[in-house]
Amino acid sequence: MPHRKLEGKKSLFIVTGASRGIGREIVLQCAARAADASAFLITARNEAALVEVKTAIKNKNKNARVWIVVCDMADLNDEAKMSFDTVMREITEQDTYESLFLFHNAGYLGDVSKKALKLNDAENWAEFLNANFVNMILLNNLILKWITNLTCPKRYIINLSSILAIQGFVSFTQHACGKAAREAFFRGLAVEEPSIRVLNYAPGPVLTDMYKIVQEKSYDPTIRKAYTVNENGNSAAKSDVHVAQLTPEQTVTKLVRILNDDQYESGAHVDYFDDEEQSV
Amino acid sequence: MPHRKLEGKKSLFIVTGASRGIGREIVLQCAARAADASAFLITARNEAALVEVKTAIKNKNKNARVWIVVCDMADLNDEAKMSFDTVMREITEQDTYESLFLFHNAGYLGDVSKKALKLNDAENWAEFLNANFVNMILLNNLILKWITNLTCPKRYIINLSSILAIQGFVSFTQHACGKAAREAFFRGLAVEEPSIRVLNYAPGPVLTDMYKIVQEKSYDPTIRKAYTVNENGNSAAKSDVHVAQLTPEQTVTKLVRILNDDQYESGAHVDYFDDEEQSV
Repeated sequence: MPHRKLEGKKSLFIVTGASRGIGREIVLQCAARAADASAFLITARNEAALVEVKTAIKNKNKNARVWIVVCDMADLNDEAKMSFDTVMREITEQDTYESLFLFHNAGYLGDVSKKALKLNDAENWAEFLNANFVNMILLNNLILKWITNLTCPKRYIINLSSILAIQGFVSFTQHACGKAAREAFFRGLAVEEPSIRVLNYAPGPVLTDMYKIVQEKSYDPTIRKAYTVNENGNSAAKSDVHVAQLTPEQTVTKLVRILNDDQYESGAHVDYFDDEEQSV
Repeated sequence: MPHRKLEGKKSLFIVTGASRGIGREIVLQCAARAADASAFLITARNEAALVEVKTAIKNKNKNARVWIVVCDMADLNDEAKMSFDTVMREITEQDTYESLFLFHNAGYLGDVSKKALKLNDAENWAEFLNANFVNMILLNNLILKWITNLTCPKRYIINLSSILAIQGFVSFTQHACGKAAREAFFRGLAVEEPSIRVLNYAPGPVLTDMYKIVQEKSYDPTIRKAYTVNENGNSAAKSDVHVAQLTPEQTVTKLVRILNDDQYESGAHVDYFDDEEQSV
């Protein structure tokens, strides 16, 4: 398979929400596939979990450089921004890389306990939009201010999105609004910055902690049932909103393949299931 | 033309941003086409302009009931909500209507002076999202709390959206994010509330005050030029972002036709240009 963009390359990987779930899996697959002496900046709230992820990176990529920034994306305050600035300065001063892969994976589910017609708490909306949308933009722009094409001639931004960005489902309206706004931001960035490749990736219904929150909190009994995990670790029922249940490994394997192939239009929405018929 | 949903019906029309531009035109076309004794709730910041619109309504629909609420959607405070509650109580106590048509037209352009990579002011984002997204939701839900199918057996919500909700253009990223989030909200509402019909309508590039702001403020010279109006009132150049220049009358005529025909899927994005080839 010629011309793969990630496999075997010396890259800088920056991953938010890197301590668990899809974010952790992204880090580990990239560590296994990237060239030796690649670099990783991993961030999340849980420092202990990030330290474990760092160890796991070193096991797969023994000369990797790894930076950790402990940060809550709900509170990207001046101190947090300074931590990122400090790390970004170190990264850019120490080395150059063939590519930057910046994965915006952090985010939370939002309120699934209420219908759209009951989402009337302005403060709740402000917090949700800040954590899941505005602070993602601020961090994105901070990183891209440091990582010009002098440090990384090729730059890839991957927004972990959702089918909800383009399709409505009961009980997921707040989540959908955040994802739709994020995709719109990256569509704009993609047309303004032709030198940057942008992917809005919908990972499918993946069994993560978010999955369990849906099962507990959704106002809709059909959704709760669809997200109930039985004793075999599988969901009890299928619904429109999740036609299958995926593992982080499955969806990240697909994402890495999409990045390696590099065939998407910059700014496009690409779903895990888009070409599953042909690849099965 | 049988079964038209707006023409000749006694309806309740609620229009935000009703003092000028597309909002004013919506009010006037609805006043001319609706049955006698229809009702109008018009809202905007400029009271004098709303009073003029009220007179214009009465000229077209002499027994119309007209309520005015002076309100800045950037500041939907408790007092403003109480004003709406008072008016909504009056409306629901006085009469019933065949249909509610609720037009969410208020909104502002956002920052077109900066690239997406420079949209780094969290406070500016919070203000923009509040005025153009969150407060629209709060008002929408307040109105629908009052207007059940007892007052209006049929309920239509029309979100004045933009092609930017689904496609990126240079210099319009903030605007696009607001429109994308609004559409996602209404897609969720549409699937949760099958008794309500929801339309996300992209009106095309209409010569309004917003148009002139683009011409003054866009960071991109090509966009500025495309939005420059020459001495004949026409734009000086064409671009991808506006393939033609429309008047409020043109786009509202099309919108009313779409509402009369009632063929769209609830929650769908429908553009002025979607069927222009066949209708020309």
